[in-house]
Amino acid sequence: MSGKQQQQQKKAQTGISPTRAEDYPEWYQQVVRAADMAESSPVRGCMIIKPWGYAIWENMQRALDGMFKATGHKNAYFPLFIPKSFLEREAKHVEGFAKECAIVTHHRLIAGPGGGLIPDPEAELEEPLVVRPTSETIIGDAFANWVKSYRDLPLLINQWANVVRWELRTRLFLRTTEFLWQEGHTAHASEAEAMEETLRMLDVYADFAENHMAVPVIKGKKTESERFPGAVETLCIEAMMQDRKALQAGTSHFLGQNFARAFGIKFQSKEEKEEHAWTTSWGVTTRLIGAMIMTHGDDDGMVTPPRLAPTHAVILPIVRDDETRAKVMPFAEKLAAELRAQRYGDRPIEVEIDARDVRGGEKNWGWIKKGVPLRIEVGPRDVDAGSAVYARRDEPSKDKHSLSAAELAKEAPAILGAMQQALFERAKAFRADNTKSFDDWNELVAFFTPPSGSSPDGSSRAKDAQNAEIHGGFALAHWAGDAAAEEKLKEMKLTIRCLPLDAPKEPGKCIMTGKPSEQRAVFAKAY
Amino acid sequence: MSGKQQQQQKKAQTGISPTRAEDYPEWYQQVVRAADMAESSPVRGCMIIKPWGYAIWENMQRALDGMFKATGHKNAYFPLFIPKSFLEREAKHVEGFAKECAIVTHHRLIAGPGGGLIPDPEAELEEPLVVRPTSETIIGDAFANWVKSYRDLPLLINQWANVVRWELRTRLFLRTTEFLWQEGHTAHASEAEAMEETLRMLDVYADFAENHMAVPVIKGKKTESERFPGAVETLCIEAMMQDRKALQAGTSHFLGQNFARAFGIKFQSKEEKEEHAWTTSWGVTTRLIGAMIMTHGDDDGMVTPPRLAPTHAVILPIVRDDETRAKVMPFAEKLAAELRAQRYGDRPIEVEIDARDVRGGEKNWGWIKKGVPLRIEVGPRDVDAGSAVYARRDEPSKDKHSLSAAELAKEAPAILGAMQQALFERAKAFRADNTKSFDDWNELVAFFTPPSGSSPDGSSRAKDAQNAEIHGGFALAHWAGDAAAEEKLKEMKLTIRCLPLDAPKEPGKCIMTGKPSEQRAVFAKAY
Repeated sequence: MSGKQQQQQKKAQTGISPTRAEDYPEWYQQVVRAADMAESSPVRGCMIIKPWGYAIWENMQRALDGMFKATGHKNAYFPLFIPKSFLEREAKHVEGFAKECAIVTHHRLIAGPGGGLIPDPEAELEEPLVVRPTSETIIGDAFANWVKSYRDLPLLINQWANVVRWELRTRLFLRTTEFLWQEGHTAHASEAEAMEETLRMLDVYADFAENHMAVPVIKGKKTESERFPGAVETLCIEAMMQDRKALQAGTSHFLGQNFARAFGIKFQSKEEKEEHAWTTSWGVTTRLIGAMIMTHGDDDGMVTPPRLAPTHAVILPIVRDDETRAKVMPFAEKLAAELRAQRYGDRPIEVEIDARDVRGGEKNWGWIKKGVPLRIEVGPRDVDAGSAVYARRDEPSKDKHSLSAAELAKEAPAILGAMQQALFERAKAFRADNTKSFDDWNELVAFFTPPSGSSPDGSSRAKDAQNAEIHGGFALAHWAGDAAAEEKLKEMKLTIRCLPLDAPKEPGKCIMTGKPSEQRAVFAKAY
Repeated sequence: MSGKQQQQQKKAQTGISPTRAEDYPEWYQQVVRAADMAESSPVRGCMIIKPWGYAIWENMQRALDGMFKATGHKNAYFPLFIPKSFLEREAKHVEGFAKECAIVTHHRLIAGPGGGLIPDPEAELEEPLVVRPTSETIIGDAFANWVKSYRDLPLLINQWANVVRWELRTRLFLRTTEFLWQEGHTAHASEAEAMEETLRMLDVYADFAENHMAVPVIKGKKTESERFPGAVETLCIEAMMQDRKALQAGTSHFLGQNFARAFGIKFQSKEEKEEHAWTTSWGVTTRLIGAMIMTHGDDDGMVTPPRLAPTHAVILPIVRDDETRAKVMPFAEKLAAELRAQRYGDRPIEVEIDARDVRGGEKNWGWIKKGVPLRIEVGPRDVDAGSAVYARRDEPSKDKHSLSAAELAKEAPAILGAMQQALFERAKAFRADNTKSFDDWNELVAFFTPPSGSSPDGSSRAKDAQNAEIHGGFALAHWAGDAAAEEKLKEMKLTIRCLPLDAPKEPGKCIMTGKPSEQRAVFAKAY
């Protein structure tokens, strides 16, 4: 075999082409497509979330919603449209959000001279409406009506909604013009209570990321230039993707009294004084699905953490003809029923029997690409032996285990639990391997400079892609810089992801300015 | 006492003023407000759904979503925006929906000459985008990509989303510019299968309306002028409100091959011929909340059917001081725990202990207005006797029952079930009382003419309101008319609600045209 043939054979062994090492961004797009999770729509920058992707979002919603309610929040719904004048009220908010958004100017279409439809010039709105990029302003206005006395506080509201931010470069799940999210909005009687809420919801996000998504995160505080427009303090959780870039997976903002002042959220205190409330907001988006793909996906496709998998186990009956079908199907149905009678996490185990009239290999690979946690094969010989063969998605696709069907049904929750834990540990080890401390600026720069040596398989395409994409990681370095220093970082496509909340206090000198610093920050390239 | 004083005292006894008889439309607005379910927003025609209203919607969603999934549907999500050209493709659809909708023309705001923000003239979209009034077109385009072979059919998709139709006259929940809904969209290989789906989902809606909302409905077929734009057949469920008007509570459309032709949804049949698919769509909206209020609400406020109540039971501890509090609260907590350990319908019983520092009467009336099914009072003497006093929201507010606490916890599911059933029976009896058959046109006209006699309490305001609002009902009459006849009905503010699906075949003559007819239609004034 020639080198090229060998290479092709090697490539043919993976479910996804290119592999992560060959071309990470393209690998990502191919996984989203192969797992049938989402696709681009005819509307620029907007995505269609397909059933497998949407079911993962529904599982995320259910888990998060339970956590929000357990911490005292109630859901409500506010208008899609925001009067332009509302966006103008909070100065920093204007700068941050008024720029790129969808603007509704008319409320009617009429037949145009050319035969098609045109916006009716007589139906122009007096005041344009902005499709919400976020709802601080319209909710701030409502809170001003709802809050009268300290007895009305705290006011703890959450909204599940779609929002629109006009993006130039979009990528499915990671950055789209329209996306789905939840936005929490709360008002409190004191600064301390509002700050406590901001931290509480960050903890909820970190708990969700680590225990449901199996994605380890660093909880931290943003620098000034990375703060939410209008916030006094922005807290975040940051995760490392397999190309070693950071992805912000959730934010929790302490808004001080800025929005309360802009919208007049005032209350009569216990001491009968009129005061402005202290507000917070916090959100996570469909971007989390992208984070999960880029944390756990492999060269065969998606790997879905069991806690969030729409289907935990698929049973693949091996049938050649009507006779084997008659033998195998009742056995498969019985096993499915036994599995469904068990619970994993907070749900019954979800099982699908894939009896489609499709070749076995195609079926098996379809489920590998979707990342279903357990694939269970049942053939005539298994029926005779009362056994089943299963494969765990986090193990190599050829690794199979045989177990009696009864044992498998009994052990399924433990097997799913072990996979969930293994994914988390693997991601944590990967992050540890790619996190380094730096005290010298040049060494930090070198860490983030693509390597120029030859790449493992020697092909120039793979080399270029790898060089451009996978390098660096999280650099821990002292920081006491300013906006100018952050600007310099941005020129290098670097950002300070956060000042970790639980980093040890460790006096040192800022790696850029030499000023004294109390702790290390996380530097990284980022999504 | 003077007549006026008596009247005022009488009025003071109801939680809501005006009463239904006095001014039905205003009663409705006051119930929505008193129950804290929704309010108008600063954006014209858009509502803010407050926590109690939104929690009812969440319960509706959970129940319906389970029914959709049980019938094989999967959820997905499609873009908020629809290219203008998509709306132009299906001729009748254009007529029906292109008229009043929100149109996005720009994607950026910039500082204007006057200091505020203006749409950036340089950021005008090449093709305006329409905020979806419904998604047949954008989903039709996606289906065209997804469907290749008969093996891809049926394709059974549902979406939970917000939609926008620019309405001139809006009323909370009943008709708003933005509303929340679900829209099912399916594609099938044959006309028969698509028609079967259309009927199946109508049955799901009727089942939900009757068994969850406790709202009796008539399943029927729309006349041509009332059909969904682009549909071959529109099926609906129609309910009678307490002002005897009809409210369309859900629709299921058989779209034939119209949208498949307009968007190119084609498949290779088993016989290897290329054919257009047959599609359906079906939806229910937040309007259902309005239907529930107008079916069950009374002069004291909302009456929430237990199946959909966010809170099934509220415990109102009667405490005078710290001593009685120390005695009563543990008893209340224990009762709450015992109730929560029970299930009603498909949920554990939801209990709230209202320990707010608010006067007892105010608290009690607050919950009456919200329509919580069970109010349970627990005072020091109840603790001594081990008993509790409860009131059912569908009974007069002063009717109270005493039961041992243990008995109450045990009986709660049965009590809730009895209330659910009683609400349904009461609504059915009301509809029966106000449904009449007509064979004479003048008699039918008289039925729908406001009475001119004196009203029960003799006040002119109440009389006018009552005359204008509450009269008529459902008239069953033979129909074989045409568009001109329907136009005449509309001038009388009457419509044909539907041709009931399960009406007996009964030969007769059209009440308007005299042409032969096979069954009676339902005539009514409507929301």
